[in-house]
Amino acid sequence: MIEICEVGPRDGLQNECKIVPTAQKVELINKLIEAGIRNIEAVSFVNPKVVPPMADAEEVLKSLPKRDDVRFGGLVLSRSGLERALKTNVDFLHVVTTTSDSFNLRNAKRTVDQAVGELSLVINEGTASGKGVAGVLGTAFGCPFEGEVPLENVLKVAEKFLEAGCTEITLADTTGMANPNQVQEVVNSFLDTFGKDLSLGLHFHNTRGLGLANVLAGYQAGVRRFDSSIAGLGGCPFAPKAVGNVCTEDMINMFHGMGIDTDTDLASILETAKWMETVMERPLDGMLLKAGIV
Amino acid sequence: MIEICEVGPRDGLQNECKIVPTAQKVELINKLIEAGIRNIEAVSFVNPKVVPPMADAEEVLKSLPKRDDVRFGGLVLSRSGLERALKTNVDFLHVVTTTSDSFNLRNAKRTVDQAVGELSLVINEGTASGKGVAGVLGTAFGCPFEGEVPLENVLKVAEKFLEAGCTEITLADTTGMANPNQVQEVVNSFLDTFGKDLSLGLHFHNTRGLGLANVLAGYQAGVRRFDSSIAGLGGCPFAPKAVGNVCTEDMINMFHGMGIDTDTDLASILETAKWMETVMERPLDGMLLKAGIV
Repeated sequence: MIEICEVGPRDGLQNECKIVPTAQKVELINKLIEAGIRNIEAVSFVNPKVVPPMADAEEVLKSLPKRDDVRFGGLVLSRSGLERALKTNVDFLHVVTTTSDSFNLRNAKRTVDQAVGELSLVINEGTASGKGVAGVLGTAFGCPFEGEVPLENVLKVAEKFLEAGCTEITLADTTGMANPNQVQEVVNSFLDTFGKDLSLGLHFHNTRGLGLANVLAGYQAGVRRFDSSIAGLGGCPFAPKAVGNVCTEDMINMFHGMGIDTDTDLASILETAKWMETVMERPLDGMLLKAGIV
Repeated sequence: MIEICEVGPRDGLQNECKIVPTAQKVELINKLIEAGIRNIEAVSFVNPKVVPPMADAEEVLKSLPKRDDVRFGGLVLSRSGLERALKTNVDFLHVVTTTSDSFNLRNAKRTVDQAVGELSLVINEGTASGKGVAGVLGTAFGCPFEGEVPLENVLKVAEKFLEAGCTEITLADTTGMANPNQVQEVVNSFLDTFGKDLSLGLHFHNTRGLGLANVLAGYQAGVRRFDSSIAGLGGCPFAPKAVGNVCTEDMINMFHGMGIDTDTDLASILETAKWMETVMERPLDGMLLKAGIV
């Protein structure tokens, strides 16, 4: 049994050129729930001036159905984001830092240590306020500026996040540098260090075509939670190097073909992906969109 | 160490809308050799009336360099194809049938048994004339008309081909239906049946985004020869469901990332893929073309 964390409404749409209206975001999330998805990164509490497409977090959350069996997550990168999140009914905070100083300084204007310091307080306060908190570690499989990111650095950030109160960790391959052997090594190392009961997720982009091969390697190493985005959202065609997350329906198709349950209805997911193409007004990257289900 | 069988000049170009002139086919093959590729499906001896883009097999072969360290293959589907092939200096005949009657009747107007009967004579005669002969089994992982193709049927065709004189077998996922678990099961079954020394290759299309995940699964099961096509050639944009072979440079990038040698120069392969985009006058499917090498 695989748990899918659908990140299309956040990581996907954030990296599209077209800004999607709030009502359509809500419609997308409702369609995903209808198809069986139960874990959705729905919004981001980053500064709206920095990421305008995500400015409507509060409005999106207000319009979502109240369901005990669905978990809505929101991205939090700072104390100000936390303050916004705590005023909403978001279920889980997705607290993110990269694990490479070069990347983090460019992306968030602080070192990894500085980020971990501030975010540990965010995690403390979030859990104290009754929110679940997931720790997401970017550049966990490599940094485009530094190359290899030493595994001990990634483990150290995870340790701090877990100590601060995170109940789960997701390792993100921010720029698509992971390969299957490395995925198995990193996962093995995480499970060795933190125990087999660690709730560990993987977040891949299909930047170099290895998204599903890396998911397979992670599955083989024992991981059972994977991020993905409907239709492979996230590859703005005007940003030449942008490539979306692993595509939800393509990943489900792989798992179902392998006889592994995901508790989702693939036909309904594929219909949602097709609808998403009409919303985005461009062909999206998912392969099943062209080829159909086997 | 992985052996790549580059099928771009044949399987790739055959499934493109644009017909590539002979001189550019030869230039492509020379660039591939320059980059380290040593096994190339260069031509097809099918009826030129049926597949016009491949009509220039004899001309292509005449213009290729004479090199003992490079193997040039040509597709042969019938006795008339064999007669043409035997008049050339092609090194290896790639003798192909699908393993599903429904597919074969539509595609080659004969049952699998009829195909195996005629092709066994082709294999006999080809080997007697000093050519190497590889047996390629299409729809080995499923048929779009019949669904599952019983593994015993696939094994039976392989047995006949090996008895007739084939020195190697390639299993082809003609319409992109394979999944990683199935790949491992089929490969295990082939190695159990014919022994670990069987020279076994795999030929995947990326139709449903699983090309590299299936290559990974095949590698894990012990396969060391994989077909691929430069830049992912083979997805004619006007044939909505056409998707090319696994992309050569993306596959090499995966193996090199995993620390597995291919004896090829990835930068040079990627340059060739870029050049191929100028030849085809359209963006091709390979992901490294956009993202670059890690």
